[in-house]
Amino acid sequence: MSRVITLAVIPGDGIGPEVVSEAVKVLEAVTAGSDIVVDSHYFSLGAARFLDTGDVLSDVDLEAIKQHDAILLGAVGGTPGDPRLADANIERGLLLKLRFSLDHYVNLRPSVLYRGVPSPLAEPGDVDFVVVREGTEGPYVGNGGTIRQGTQNEVANEVSVNTAYGVERVVRYAFATASARPRKKLTLVHKTNVLVFAGSLWQRIVNEVAIEFPDVAVDYLHVDAATIFLVTNPARFDVIVTDNLFGDILTDLAAAISGGIGLAASGNINPDGRFPSMFEPVHGSAPDIAGKQLADPTAAILSVALLLDHLGLAEQAARVNAAVIADIAARTGEARGTAEIGDAIARSLSRND
Amino acid sequence: MSRVITLAVIPGDGIGPEVVSEAVKVLEAVTAGSDIVVDSHYFSLGAARFLDTGDVLSDVDLEAIKQHDAILLGAVGGTPGDPRLADANIERGLLLKLRFSLDHYVNLRPSVLYRGVPSPLAEPGDVDFVVVREGTEGPYVGNGGTIRQGTQNEVANEVSVNTAYGVERVVRYAFATASARPRKKLTLVHKTNVLVFAGSLWQRIVNEVAIEFPDVAVDYLHVDAATIFLVTNPARFDVIVTDNLFGDILTDLAAAISGGIGLAASGNINPDGRFPSMFEPVHGSAPDIAGKQLADPTAAILSVALLLDHLGLAEQAARVNAAVIADIAARTGEARGTAEIGDAIARSLSRND
Ligand SMILES: CC(C)[C@H](C(=O)O)[C@@H](O)C(=O)O
Ligand SMILES: CC(C)[C@H](C(=O)O)[C@@H](O)C(=O)O
Repeated sequence: MSRVITLAVIPGDGIGPEVVSEAVKVLEAVTAGSDIVVDSHYFSLGAARFLDTGDVLSDVDLEAIKQHDAILLGAVGGTPGDPRLADANIERGLLLKLRFSLDHYVNLRPSVLYRGVPSPLAEPGDVDFVVVREGTEGPYVGNGGTIRQGTQNEVANEVSVNTAYGVERVVRYAFATASARPRKKLTLVHKTNVLVFAGSLWQRIVNEVAIEFPDVAVDYLHVDAATIFLVTNPARFDVIVTDNLFGDILTDLAAAISGGIGLAASGNINPDGRFPSMFEPVHGSAPDIAGKQLADPTAAILSVALLLDHLGLAEQAARVNAAVIADIAARTGEARGTAEIGDAIARSLSRND
Repeated sequence: MSRVITLAVIPGDGIGPEVVSEAVKVLEAVTAGSDIVVDSHYFSLGAARFLDTGDVLSDVDLEAIKQHDAILLGAVGGTPGDPRLADANIERGLLLKLRFSLDHYVNLRPSVLYRGVPSPLAEPGDVDFVVVREGTEGPYVGNGGTIRQGTQNEVANEVSVNTAYGVERVVRYAFATASARPRKKLTLVHKTNVLVFAGSLWQRIVNEVAIEFPDVAVDYLHVDAATIFLVTNPARFDVIVTDNLFGDILTDLAAAISGGIGLAASGNINPDGRFPSMFEPVHGSAPDIAGKQLADPTAAILSVALLLDHLGLAEQAARVNAAVIADIAARTGEARGTAEIGDAIARSLSRND
């Protein structure tokens, strides 16, 4: 009896389609000859689709995507400053709409400095941590507004909304994640001394949930101080839990210090399983290098490993991770094309079968 | 005829008094024998004062401080987690209250990687940029609130308030700063794709003011991407203009990549001159190393240079800067006490007289 996994694939814009091709190639290689059948459906969404049809994310597409077991996304977004995109906020209307509609309340972003990867840090130490970023609240909710727009008297507000319900579920997930890791350490990152309302809520919930996880050591850092430690002592981190905006900022920095955005994978997870989770590289669509086989598909491929793990296919996830680690360790510094890297990783998985 | 400068000195908590002593020593050395007389008044404010008297910042103290030409602040804040401080938010009630009451709408934070300073980056390049952080708006305004506090149904909001008036004056200052620097480059950092209301306002004002400064090259980075470039290519930055919270985060990161928080100076400036500007090291009170002569007073001393510059004493400011640069370049790696460093810098200034 075979297990069928239905996959919604959103290649997106720029380098998205290139890296997704390689990710799918690797997914096929790691499941080939097994009882797992991946049934992929492609959704043409992003800036290109908007320019074609005026659609950002229709209800029909959203409903269709919901019917899948998981989503693989490349990257969305057109050329920055393209006037034809001025009125379509692809990020809010597509990427964030997916995260919010599918209740992706955990945005999981591991950072590992793999052997063989040159670090921009003089003394990186052993970088191996994961950021659990809240995905459905905070300053990302879009609850802002503006008055007297375009005038000298404009006032533009942005509201960060934080609920005990929303904070608790992601904090609980972060504690469980920490508890399952060898070092069992959780760092809350916030700005409790300035954002006292949201900060107190986060700190209270962390204190409360901590009681259920006596094996996990907990500490706290202000977001500004956290950026310092990410540069001077990233080895101090194990699991970071933080809000949507701080998580956005810290994970780009985390990617930078652990080998670059070309290696940073992420999962937008709905742990309840009510909606499909979505896996995507942290990088953007990089239109300037699109179509040139210059993008590193490793982040997309590592996102496939997160996807496999999420679907309970831990062995396959581990094989993809191992293949990536071996590929990275063998890098000589000679430039390889996007497909060349994907082919090499897929090939090594087939050989191991 | 002598020029009298009235100075409100707030040594504060932790290492604050130690570093302020050295900063005052240097200020005295650089003005000694000239017609400049520094008339200092000390204000005992901070966690220690609060524990003594229950005062955070009284109206009487605030009014007295306002009567000075400038303010020198060490650092405020007690031991993190001290239960006696739980209800007194020293940061909001003192530091931010000063910044807001004295309309410090420019928070100026230069980052220079001085010769002789070990960088945590493998290839830092030529780091020499300044962050112009907005100081009176954004998520720092304290316009938040919470309902059902302490329950499972709590909702805690934080409102970021951004006005055309507030954004324009700091953007104009940033353009003027960029225009006066050799590279004449300004980077707006925000998160316009997510915080669309505040982001559109910032981008619009930058576009408008740019017309008045045709000599300044302007670009834009999302805050997450900016953290990457600060690590991988800090030399790309000249002047960064950004909001209060992004500026807080970026300037700690900027300090980390340019030799550490022990060297990072800042000015909280009211360019109108209606209120005294306040100069302080970026670092905090570090109670764990207080009283041990372990703190580097360089950030406080460089803050004195910013103070002198602000008061129109450019020549004295340049001498302090030069003395610091020489001191740093001569560092052998041997540990020196706080006063030892201050003495050395003060002595070199007296010699030059
Ligand atoms: C594209 C943007 C909306 C997105 C975010 O801010 O979450 C991206 O930066 C990310 O981190 O996935
Ligand atoms: C202490 C805190 C309120 C302050 C801030 O957030 O502005 C500090 O981090 C700084 O950068 O000066």
